[in-house]
Amino acid sequence: MLSRDSIHSTAQFSAPSPTTTSGGLSRLSGTAQDKLARDYFASQIHSLGATRYFINNTGSQFALFDFSASMPSVPPIAMGSHLDSVETGGRFDGPLGVLGALEVVRSLKEQGVRTFAPIVVINWTNEEGARFFPPLGSSVVYAGQSSVSAAQESKANDGSGGTLGEALRGIGYVGDGPNTFEEFPISAHFEIHVEQARTLEKAGKSVGWVTGWQGISVFEMVFRGEDGHANTYAMDEVHRRDSLVGASKVIVEIERLALSNNGITTVTGIRSGPVGSCNIQSWTKITFCLMHQESSKLFAIGEEMKARALAQAKLGGLEMEVERVMHLEPGEFWPEAVDCVKRACGDRGMAAKTLTAHDSTMTTLVCPTAMVFARGKEGISHCAQEWTSKEDCAESAEVLGKAVLNYDEVLRKKYEA
Amino acid sequence: MLSRDSIHSTAQFSAPSPTTTSGGLSRLSGTAQDKLARDYFASQIHSLGATRYFINNTGSQFALFDFSASMPSVPPIAMGSHLDSVETGGRFDGPLGVLGALEVVRSLKEQGVRTFAPIVVINWTNEEGARFFPPLGSSVVYAGQSSVSAAQESKANDGSGGTLGEALRGIGYVGDGPNTFEEFPISAHFEIHVEQARTLEKAGKSVGWVTGWQGISVFEMVFRGEDGHANTYAMDEVHRRDSLVGASKVIVEIERLALSNNGITTVTGIRSGPVGSCNIQSWTKITFCLMHQESSKLFAIGEEMKARALAQAKLGGLEMEVERVMHLEPGEFWPEAVDCVKRACGDRGMAAKTLTAHDSTMTTLVCPTAMVFARGKEGISHCAQEWTSKEDCAESAEVLGKAVLNYDEVLRKKYEA
Repeated sequence: MLSRDSIHSTAQFSAPSPTTTSGGLSRLSGTAQDKLARDYFASQIHSLGATRYFINNTGSQFALFDFSASMPSVPPIAMGSHLDSVETGGRFDGPLGVLGALEVVRSLKEQGVRTFAPIVVINWTNEEGARFFPPLGSSVVYAGQSSVSAAQESKANDGSGGTLGEALRGIGYVGDGPNTFEEFPISAHFEIHVEQARTLEKAGKSVGWVTGWQGISVFEMVFRGEDGHANTYAMDEVHRRDSLVGASKVIVEIERLALSNNGITTVTGIRSGPVGSCNIQSWTKITFCLMHQESSKLFAIGEEMKARALAQAKLGGLEMEVERVMHLEPGEFWPEAVDCVKRACGDRGMAAKTLTAHDSTMTTLVCPTAMVFARGKEGISHCAQEWTSKEDCAESAEVLGKAVLNYDEVLRKKYEA
Repeated sequence: MLSRDSIHSTAQFSAPSPTTTSGGLSRLSGTAQDKLARDYFASQIHSLGATRYFINNTGSQFALFDFSASMPSVPPIAMGSHLDSVETGGRFDGPLGVLGALEVVRSLKEQGVRTFAPIVVINWTNEEGARFFPPLGSSVVYAGQSSVSAAQESKANDGSGGTLGEALRGIGYVGDGPNTFEEFPISAHFEIHVEQARTLEKAGKSVGWVTGWQGISVFEMVFRGEDGHANTYAMDEVHRRDSLVGASKVIVEIERLALSNNGITTVTGIRSGPVGSCNIQSWTKITFCLMHQESSKLFAIGEEMKARALAQAKLGGLEMEVERVMHLEPGEFWPEAVDCVKRACGDRGMAAKTLTAHDSTMTTLVCPTAMVFARGKEGISHCAQEWTSKEDCAESAEVLGKAVLNYDEVLRKKYEA
């Protein structure tokens, strides 16, 4: 029952939520609260007897445990997730995966299990991308999709100009690496995560094996009009080019478009200027994500959104720039790893897809990866009401442990063959 | 020709504009650039032989000139405007009124004119309200409509949490008063301002006498929905309560409403949260102003906007709070003061109304007040392209001087009667 207990006790490492008074978690990457959670992680892995501990250049914490009875040269099997949260997070998205992994280690140790491969537990940095964009800040580097310097220069979403690297240095969590799969290979990566949809809940299943993920594109659009006096410019004059009105029309239109195409879209941020109470907003920037299960539809809807936004901008006399700042193709996890989770679930579980990205959607690019879903409540996530029962938390940790041992056996056979 | 020359030479006291590379003015209240302009003002009035100079508690600069041949107990006639600008300002809105007043003083001095009343030149603080809300930051206190402490606590529009008082202290421009008309009465207030509409331009007139102003209401609306994951929440679920989509629909709707009612509305700011790239925006705040020539229409359209926004919010499952944070009834300047400007204009001028608020719309609450319009270009204002020709600048200053002398004569007769 430890993982759930530690989930609630470590939820003390939280800033006050801007929207709720209790129950949630607000632990943005690189904040004082993140430091406390990281320090807790370090103290736990030391007391569990980690044989090697390092922090890499993007702040991720790696703790190695050598339960191996045989070849120390076999790359470790990893269990990882993240301790950071969004600003208005629930307590499970992220922490369940890390604290559940620690529980598996504790259990293996208590039972004196000897594995074929060593075990590594990872707390990945800035999975959420809530304070600094892009998300998956460290696992994306590990998977060779970005560089350490690009990750360190991830920009603050609030426009304050800060970077992830500065924030990590500020809390003393920039290490020396290794940073990539090539520098520190792992045999596989397993991750528990709360399901952020209702598949398990509706079917009455406590756990699930995650077969794949839907695709995600993130776009930034900037609309540029003309500066003008808020009080005095007539509204029917040709030269009133109000970027905020234009952007608002686009927001309404892309929502309709996603709905009618069975996709999902969310505008996750808006900023405009000039600052003040007496000016037409001459520039407005919006960021939105578009999700779809099918790659072709994801692309087609995205193109249609861009076309309609451009048409709307032209109607309003605005210039528009658009950039796709992140893209994740829909995909499938490794069957050999998924099978290990499936066998661990048994008939308490079922197959499910995740609707978002995780550190595992990065590691799966370089090594066998699979995820364990724990049943959520009403699909609620990134919200103080996010919930998984004590029993489901424990069960997901048990499945994680069994999946790792299943994969350890797969590995042993591979090496012995 | 000095006022126009000094307008362009003092435009060096400007931050880089966020939207243009040349021609404009970015001199937000309480910034380093504002300090430079204030220092320039102080050096000018000293070299012109000001007999008394003070800075009040809201940072306004008052420079007294005693050209009076008679009763020193007559309250001075004021000429004032503001040296601050919006973030993307033109060079004329504000500075023309202050630098034109300095030119009048120079001219009176050179010609050895003896007036009945002393003269005071005022640089009012934070007229624009661009960096700190509300606008008319110091004249509103002078007119007894607000307090020194409320003005000093004017909040930063960018949400940074700073106040006008802190900014003024930061540049060394918080004085000891006097702050109000009662503490420092004036006989009248005259102000040159660039017209921010096309009345003069269309009629081929270089100057104008301003008879009154249209009404302005400023509203803040906050929409509150629910936190949720940007990627995973289905769009057709009842619990997706996206405050930014709701606010966008309201923005589009209030624009239509103002247009169809012959009013003007502008949404001057939007902020939303939580911060990040992976959350539904659970709160969104918009600020907008509504303008109309008629008081009853201004009120009625405002009520209709609130009702429609509330209906839209309910449709989206949102809570809504609305507050009218500023209100200015449409009104007329004092006929006895307007007449002095009208006579000064002669047939080069015409009557016009201003579409926005000025420091004069505050002083007119406590003493005879009138304004001189200088012809603008295409109604453009709060924009780098704002423009008044060298000749029209000079003419407006000439009219200001004559209007003050006209009023001085009115005053002499009043006192002698």
